[in-house]
Amino acid sequence: MNFSDRLFNACRAKESAVVVGIDPDPLLIPRPYFPDPIPESNRREAIAKGIVAFAEDVIDAVREIAVAIKPQLAHFERFGAPGLAAFERVVALGREAGLIVIADGKRNDIGSTAEMYASAYLGGRAKAPEGHDQGDGDAWASAVASAEREGPKADALTVNPYLGWDGIEPFAFRGDSGIFVLVKTSNPSSGELQGLSVGESGRTVADVVAASIEKASYSRLGSFGYGPVGAVVGATYPAELERLRASMPHVPFLIPGFGAQGGTADDVARGFDAAGLGAVVNASRSILYAYRTGGSVSAASRKAAARMRDAVNEAIARRAH
Amino acid sequence: MNFSDRLFNACRAKESAVVVGIDPDPLLIPRPYFPDPIPESNRREAIAKGIVAFAEDVIDAVREIAVAIKPQLAHFERFGAPGLAAFERVVALGREAGLIVIADGKRNDIGSTAEMYASAYLGGRAKAPEGHDQGDGDAWASAVASAEREGPKADALTVNPYLGWDGIEPFAFRGDSGIFVLVKTSNPSSGELQGLSVGESGRTVADVVAASIEKASYSRLGSFGYGPVGAVVGATYPAELERLRASMPHVPFLIPGFGAQGGTADDVARGFDAAGLGAVVNASRSILYAYRTGGSVSAASRKAAARMRDAVNEAIARRAH
Repeated sequence: MNFSDRLFNACRAKESAVVVGIDPDPLLIPRPYFPDPIPESNRREAIAKGIVAFAEDVIDAVREIAVAIKPQLAHFERFGAPGLAAFERVVALGREAGLIVIADGKRNDIGSTAEMYASAYLGGRAKAPEGHDQGDGDAWASAVASAEREGPKADALTVNPYLGWDGIEPFAFRGDSGIFVLVKTSNPSSGELQGLSVGESGRTVADVVAASIEKASYSRLGSFGYGPVGAVVGATYPAELERLRASMPHVPFLIPGFGAQGGTADDVARGFDAAGLGAVVNASRSILYAYRTGGSVSAASRKAAARMRDAVNEAIARRAH
Repeated sequence: MNFSDRLFNACRAKESAVVVGIDPDPLLIPRPYFPDPIPESNRREAIAKGIVAFAEDVIDAVREIAVAIKPQLAHFERFGAPGLAAFERVVALGREAGLIVIADGKRNDIGSTAEMYASAYLGGRAKAPEGHDQGDGDAWASAVASAEREGPKADALTVNPYLGWDGIEPFAFRGDSGIFVLVKTSNPSSGELQGLSVGESGRTVADVVAASIEKASYSRLGSFGYGPVGAVVGATYPAELERLRASMPHVPFLIPGFGAQGGTADDVARGFDAAGLGAVVNASRSILYAYRTGGSVSAASRKAAARMRDAVNEAIARRAH
């Protein structure tokens, strides 16, 4: 099924556009999730285990409210191989909970290497490399492919477009997975490069990226009129968000920057179409760490996610009238 | 010591600008590095172990010839957590061999998340997140920081600039490490975004990135007149390479695209300064898999690396006359 159909079917079924960003920070997670003291012989494993337990509680709490989780890879990679094992476990937990899993890795590389990142996070068979002639040939190649398939795979991956289309294409159109390409990011200096005017046209670099992914998604439309190649457009630049929504009518949006980064429900509503679809909205800290202003991790994250869902839905409805 | 001094001291001492890209592909590595058959219960671990053994032989063979290795992360991440453990082991082996280690991850994210990637691959203490007040405070924070420091760290990391300077800065100026920011990549469609003309100035997007990293490196010059913020500029666009060399006189270059991708020694020579310094040149497949045209892995990779070193040195010398 087209990734956009999977995404927006979930939005319809749950009446929600909420994505919970899994950005686990041990210093913000309740201390009891971790052994005390941390064993010096395997600190990273102990921390990774606590991160998984915390993520599991959050995922379980929000599973009926959120449509997706977005584990952010740096938060796992900082603890090395044990951290990446925790990432894999979180991906599996998200899928077991019936949630769409968006791996936030902002990966990018040239063709054959991009293909390996895509296999790692989205699955699908990698192309055989040039010059492959190992004698025992196919048995070994299929063992390697099986190894590559062993890890739990996400449903979508964030991708950085700086290398141009041949650095994006290997990630796109893999089975029923999707990608979200960075177009306009939520950070303060995102305009330095993304906002540069191209030639005398008045178009920006972000517009050029937008045009290429609109074209890609348009080539594979699902039943809601969207394709599987999405865009990351930050809530912190609402005028840009509205403009880019209009220029990419067939592209699903992943909107970060809601909540802790300053984006409001009315800001993110500009990323939705007239039917109230076309986008999902990520919040991380405001949901994960809601317990810090009272309540258990489960109760507080569920409540924060529900409040966000309602606020976004109301803003979309206001905008429709 | 300034990263550029470490890099160019090594180049002077070894009379070499060779970086060996560690892009391990099980289908191109001699089959005996892996168990036969691969145990189905832990395929990824078995493959990861073979990759490390192969990389160890190559590192040992080229240690006197190359100045650096450049392990490429996708080749490890495709085998998940066991793959990342292999990456960590390769980083450690490179450092033990006295080589500079450049982690090729092309990482990028917004401020606090970029900081985590930087801690993961380059080390250095991450800033405490906002709102950190765990009660037992510093003991726990220092346990987490210790966990983060546990993995072997690289000397440099490749970084993608699409997010602007606040997505680059967290990676820069960390102790004696360096970064190489993608400016002009070696792939066929790199011009789609990097080559866009900005406004009416005739400058390209790549030029804008170049200007920002020239400024950053200029602020921390080492004894060779270079700073710690480098640029990735592909050998496959030699005219661009020469132009960018002139516009970034204080920026160390990492030049990919030599050999298998088509860049020649005369092409890459354009990335060096009048003193024959200022750049290092990566080759991956043509060294790693040199054994496929005859000889042992050790002998063939050593010979291929030496041949590359000499070809690049001769081209630099020709250019100087």
